Amino acid sequence: MKISIRKSNLLQGINIVSKAVSNKTTHPILSCILVEAAGGVIKLTANDMEIGIESYVDGTVIEDGKVALEAKLFSDFIRKLPDSDITIESDKDSKTLIKCERLEFNIPGKSGEDFSNLPVVSKDKFITISQFALREVINQTIFSISDNENNKLMTGELFEVSNNKLSVVSLDGHRISIRYIELKGDNSDIKVVVPGKSLSDISKIMNGGVDDPVNIYFTDNNILFEFDNTKVVSRLIEGEYFRISHMLSVDYQIKMKINKREFLDSLDRATLLIKDSDKKPIRLSIDDRTLGLKISSLIGSLNEEIDIEKEGNNLVIGFNPKLIIDALRVIDDENVTIYFNNTKSPCVIKDDAETYIYLILPMGINEE
Amino acid sequence: MKISIRKSNLLQGINIVSKAVSNKTTHPILSCILVEAAGGVIKLTANDMEIGIESYVDGTVIEDGKVALEAKLFSDFIRKLPDSDITIESDKDSKTLIKCERLEFNIPGKSGEDFSNLPVVSKDKFITISQFALREVINQTIFSISDNENNKLMTGELFEVSNNKLSVVSLDGHRISIRYIELKGDNSDIKVVVPGKSLSDISKIMNGGVDDPVNIYFTDNNILFEFDNTKVVSRLIEGEYFRISHMLSVDYQIKMKINKREFLDSLDRATLLIKDSDKKPIRLSIDDRTLGLKISSLIGSLNEEIDIEKEGNNLVIGFNPKLIIDALRVIDDENVTIYFNNTKSPCVIKDDAETYIYLILPMGINEE
Repeated sequence: MKISIRKSNLLQGINIVSKAVSNKTTHPILSCILVEAAGGVIKLTANDMEIGIESYVDGTVIEDGKVALEAKLFSDFIRKLPDSDITIESDKDSKTLIKCERLEFNIPGKSGEDFSNLPVVSKDKFITISQFALREVINQTIFSISDNENNKLMTGELFEVSNNKLSVVSLDGHRISIRYIELKGDNSDIKVVVPGKSLSDISKIMNGGVDDPVNIYFTDNNILFEFDNTKVVSRLIEGEYFRISHMLSVDYQIKMKINKREFLDSLDRATLLIKDSDKKPIRLSIDDRTLGLKISSLIGSLNEEIDIEKEGNNLVIGFNPKLIIDALRVIDDENVTIYFNNTKSPCVIKDDAETYIYLILPMGINEE
Repeated sequence: MKISIRKSNLLQGINIVSKAVSNKTTHPILSCILVEAAGGVIKLTANDMEIGIESYVDGTVIEDGKVALEAKLFSDFIRKLPDSDITIESDKDSKTLIKCERLEFNIPGKSGEDFSNLPVVSKDKFITISQFALREVINQTIFSISDNENNKLMTGELFEVSNNKLSVVSLDGHRISIRYIELKGDNSDIKVVVPGKSLSDISKIMNGGVDDPVNIYFTDNNILFEFDNTKVVSRLIEGEYFRISHMLSVDYQIKMKINKREFLDSLDRATLLIKDSDKKPIRLSIDDRTLGLKISSLIGSLNEEIDIEKEGNNLVIGFNPKLIIDALRVIDDENVTIYFNNTKSPCVIKDDAETYIYLILPMGINEE
């Protein structure tokens, strides 16, 4: 194989596929990037068997072929080169020579034949949304997946298409986060669970805006994201996702409108009084015009008041402040509306158009 | 004690003195900040017994007194407050109430009487330089102190005043770094060794420019830096510093001028081929018009060429590339001049005016 390629183009491709490089050293080939030249095009691929990414990069093919190069060394070295033309040449033993200006770099490669290709995903069922929208819904829900591998389904997110609307759902037993996107055209119904790690990787490598589309293809075992020069394939998590509709169909008796920034800052201060180990709730007293916040622990005690608008009864209720903080941080609105029923029922943060719903379970508070 | 103070002023003071807060929990009082109000002024102090910092902050004293507050909680909490007026009030049991807008924060404090005051430093011997210059000479030499506590003197830097010139010297057994500053007026001769950790802290909290002075006072046991509203006292390291003059008075037979950026980038790439554990040298071949760089290890091999101007013989010599990189990174010049004698003698990087000297020992290379 022999190719010539601009440093900036190569580095961009490397940065994209690197997200699928395995950190485990048990299978050295999984920690490589495959460089492949064929039919005039240059393709980089990485595949850790859970997620696989391939990306086409602009450059000139001088001789067809492929070679697998240890990803960390390859990417660190390319990053440190001047922004100039680079030649990469590998022989039949995968020995690789990288040339740039007046430097020559020799490294042993691995045979491209040993590299696992990405699974083929059929393109029957798919949706198209903007890269911006996909990145947003991932970032706005990913924080409430569980990291407990004992319940595999909770480590992923539900992608459900129904009535031409995409819902993205995550939950961890203490809360549920939901974002909705209206889809164009007529779309098949779909229901799959995508690993959280794959979604987090995709949101990092997909830089496009509201006018840059991403096509998402679904099969029973895999999901394929296709955008720009890049394809990302992730395996799906098997099993039936949790039924959440009955938790969302409740009527609420108390409605509170509050400035998001003030509420967030106040909760953030409260977290200083909570050590990781103890489960101290913050005590919210919802009054006619003010919300009182109170937390006390061995470290100290904090009392605050924030102006609110309220409909319904007064209520005193406890929450883990971190769970409310996580939700408020990903809401762009200046004011948020929060619905309550009673001390034992979850609160729900949602907008009138229901583009988002964040449901959070309360904690018991011991009234002294 | 009762004071009223703007959040931004208080936070600035906290950020400065925090550098002297101890991380060790064996003496809880050392991980506190002392807040002291007396004679109409407010002073913050931290002291880990190696370095002590006090800083005056603008604010209103309502009642004299002092209290010691756990530094991390205090600074995290103040940081999270709105930029508004803050009232801090402590009672005779050191219980402290912090008020800001509509919030009240209660924490237990410690008695200010238990706090160790900063040592008194006599002001007989001193020099004045700009804050910018002091920050620069520290950053340009601090990398070559040793972290080996077995040789205490190597963990500090020599501050020597002689003939109205300040020399700042660090060395670690493999290299020597020296920076010189011309002093104004007539200055006493001084020779002290300052702990590297103290210097590194000072360079971080001193933000002034070329027109902002810092006064440095010297006694046998302590050094005092006085600038803006802040005093920093550090203990000195006892003992006679190494004699280096005989190493610097050598005549050199080879003089090489090279573009700093090209040399630095090339050495930086070479480090990718060196694992921390093995001591691979980079092989420099100094020719009439080019410098050849060559390194090979189990990871791979790299060959480069850079244009140079040279006087004297050709030479092949080995170095740990990291040591040359450290020196080049803190030199502002576009081109650097490096002097050599033979394979076993150190190289010296210095400018014509001798504002800096970096001496680096070579490594043996096995010619294959």
